[in-house]
Amino acid sequence: MAKTDFTWTRAQFALPEGVIYLDGNSLGPLPRTAAERVARTVTDEWGEMLITGWNKAGWMAAPMDLGDRVGRLIGAAPGTTVIGDTLSIKVYQALASALSLADPDRRIILSDTGNFPSDLYMAQGLIDTLDRDYELRVVSPETVAQALTSEVAVMMLTQIDYRTGRRHDMEELTAQAHSVGALTIWDLAHSAGAIEVDLTGADADFAVGCTYKYLNAGPGAPAFITIAPRHADIAKPALAGWLGHDAPFAFEPAYRPGEGVARMRVGTPPILQCAALEAALDIFDRVDMADVRARSIELSERFISGVEARCPGVVLNSPRPPELRGSQVSFRHPEGYAVMQALIDRGVIGDFRAPDNLRFGITPLYLTEADIDGAVGILADILDNRLWDRDGYKRRAMVT
Amino acid sequence: MAKTDFTWTRAQFALPEGVIYLDGNSLGPLPRTAAERVARTVTDEWGEMLITGWNKAGWMAAPMDLGDRVGRLIGAAPGTTVIGDTLSIKVYQALASALSLADPDRRIILSDTGNFPSDLYMAQGLIDTLDRDYELRVVSPETVAQALTSEVAVMMLTQIDYRTGRRHDMEELTAQAHSVGALTIWDLAHSAGAIEVDLTGADADFAVGCTYKYLNAGPGAPAFITIAPRHADIAKPALAGWLGHDAPFAFEPAYRPGEGVARMRVGTPPILQCAALEAALDIFDRVDMADVRARSIELSERFISGVEARCPGVVLNSPRPPELRGSQVSFRHPEGYAVMQALIDRGVIGDFRAPDNLRFGITPLYLTEADIDGAVGILADILDNRLWDRDGYKRRAMVT
Repeated sequence: MAKTDFTWTRAQFALPEGVIYLDGNSLGPLPRTAAERVARTVTDEWGEMLITGWNKAGWMAAPMDLGDRVGRLIGAAPGTTVIGDTLSIKVYQALASALSLADPDRRIILSDTGNFPSDLYMAQGLIDTLDRDYELRVVSPETVAQALTSEVAVMMLTQIDYRTGRRHDMEELTAQAHSVGALTIWDLAHSAGAIEVDLTGADADFAVGCTYKYLNAGPGAPAFITIAPRHADIAKPALAGWLGHDAPFAFEPAYRPGEGVARMRVGTPPILQCAALEAALDIFDRVDMADVRARSIELSERFISGVEARCPGVVLNSPRPPELRGSQVSFRHPEGYAVMQALIDRGVIGDFRAPDNLRFGITPLYLTEADIDGAVGILADILDNRLWDRDGYKRRAMVT
Repeated sequence: MAKTDFTWTRAQFALPEGVIYLDGNSLGPLPRTAAERVARTVTDEWGEMLITGWNKAGWMAAPMDLGDRVGRLIGAAPGTTVIGDTLSIKVYQALASALSLADPDRRIILSDTGNFPSDLYMAQGLIDTLDRDYELRVVSPETVAQALTSEVAVMMLTQIDYRTGRRHDMEELTAQAHSVGALTIWDLAHSAGAIEVDLTGADADFAVGCTYKYLNAGPGAPAFITIAPRHADIAKPALAGWLGHDAPFAFEPAYRPGEGVARMRVGTPPILQCAALEAALDIFDRVDMADVRARSIELSERFISGVEARCPGVVLNSPRPPELRGSQVSFRHPEGYAVMQALIDRGVIGDFRAPDNLRFGITPLYLTEADIDGAVGILADILDNRLWDRDGYKRRAMVT
């Protein structure tokens, strides 16, 4: 592919005047064509086609079509990814499926403290529902490899830590998990659209993720799930909904799973959200993830150097070597919450994660060197002049 | 409330020229304000507020706010209904929750052949996942009451049959279930916005439903779940996602369920779909469900008399007494599929359910006597002149 044109990609987003948006790791900004694409779906499809839109407008096929377009960005084979539901739901499906494939004598679900809490909650909810003696064993990210024993049924990790941006080596940990006979579930919430991912190369078993962060598909955009071809036709969906049935409109009394990952469909897909996702993926069709990764590292390094040079009292809370990070940079500051409020009031939107973490998403599709330098300058000004130490910011900090 | 103004309600919908839409029981038409409301959410909220929309635009509160607005239409107490996910997911949550509340010695989940297949599939998936000796016992709708024994843990029914429109007596069956110590789950897919429902009066335990049929919230609109107050704080959500946590943004390692039905939230709500739902519910704010019910019966009776008078060979497949029906009317015809295709080509949109069922939704918010008479006339013409017996229609019939 030709080198990605980042001037073109930036022009595809509707960014508010005066804002430096460093929170695309939480909610990506609006692709310009999404407004028009959603309006078309509402007015020309829903409004004009009514029920016939399910076939005429391709609504019914959208989850597999969009799944393949997401799959391309994460190194999934065609036909192995489907979109739908929310990430938490897809975690539950992946975990229930993986447990049904695992050796029944293995009782440990291995995860780490860097996993997003909802993934751990979903596992707890599943274990509680199953009411069997599964153990969710949560270790530190550094000791996951050591904790991989022959008792582990499933290793379930988020590749990139939502607070620090610390990145797991997916290929190596997957190989280690497989070497002890464990299955793997990778949550790619902070990976898809952010870094290069090669699910096929890593031989990953299950992967899940969301599309509202680096993929820019909007608030409440659907999640995705990928299953390795070797599992796809034997995996149980657990959430066995009619759209995962082999013949949904035959209305048979008994469930028969559809072919491959299509069985992970559950209910009616959210068509308005799918329209926004489609527009967001149109941008990625002209993007090479290797370029995005290289540019993310450039901008991140620039941000770290700038902050470290000009903002004393702020301490890097992400791994220093770029290859150990995803596409975000975090810093600690004892008054982090108040500092972030001051930043947001000056138009630099990042976010805060307790206890003291300032989190900044570095998203090359729409950020420039000028944005990075601007953010550094404003942060330096806030710290130099103790602007964060104002009653309004401190008071807000106290109520968190 | 003042008498519902059906001229006003009809004017609220964007109905395509030349179409008589009798499929609002499958996908409701577009409320005129939905296009504008969704566009505002995309452009002014997502585009301008970015991540801050979760608070500033009220996105985070939407599931409970919208839940209460749906709840009012089904006789649920305020604070007992929340929207999210799909109906199949909500069936799973309700059933897993109900089983966790039921006497553990009871092993039967009772349902009927009139339930929507996805509800039965979700129950099968749950039983399979639990791998315990639950039995999904599916009886005929007429024998549900007899099948209620002290072995039944949960009675799970769809109130209105998706094919025939046959309506269960929710109050009576709930009382009978309770009298043998069973819990109840009512699927209101074809009830909410269609008929008067009084969950509180019926003392129902759990209810679920969708919003894209009679509530007109668009393709893939979110589902809802209601839990009786006596269960809400002890029910286990099973799908224990972070937005159902008591403090989602504390990012605690362990799950703690939120208060009441809020614990049934799972992941990030679909904000674009919520915007359309909001617009759809604005119409219902000026509607009295008793008026809707009375008008639905008027129009349905008119449709049945018209068809029976003018369309020989077509046989009523819904209960004849209006009080035993929901808000749809079904007829059988041996060439039902081809007849429906011919109808659709003439602008009368209903749908077909195998083997021979012509299904018509009667939706007073936007249908008039003229629509009903027009549909009858076109159906009579198609049958009188055997227009369905054309190669195109018959060929399409063969491929179903």
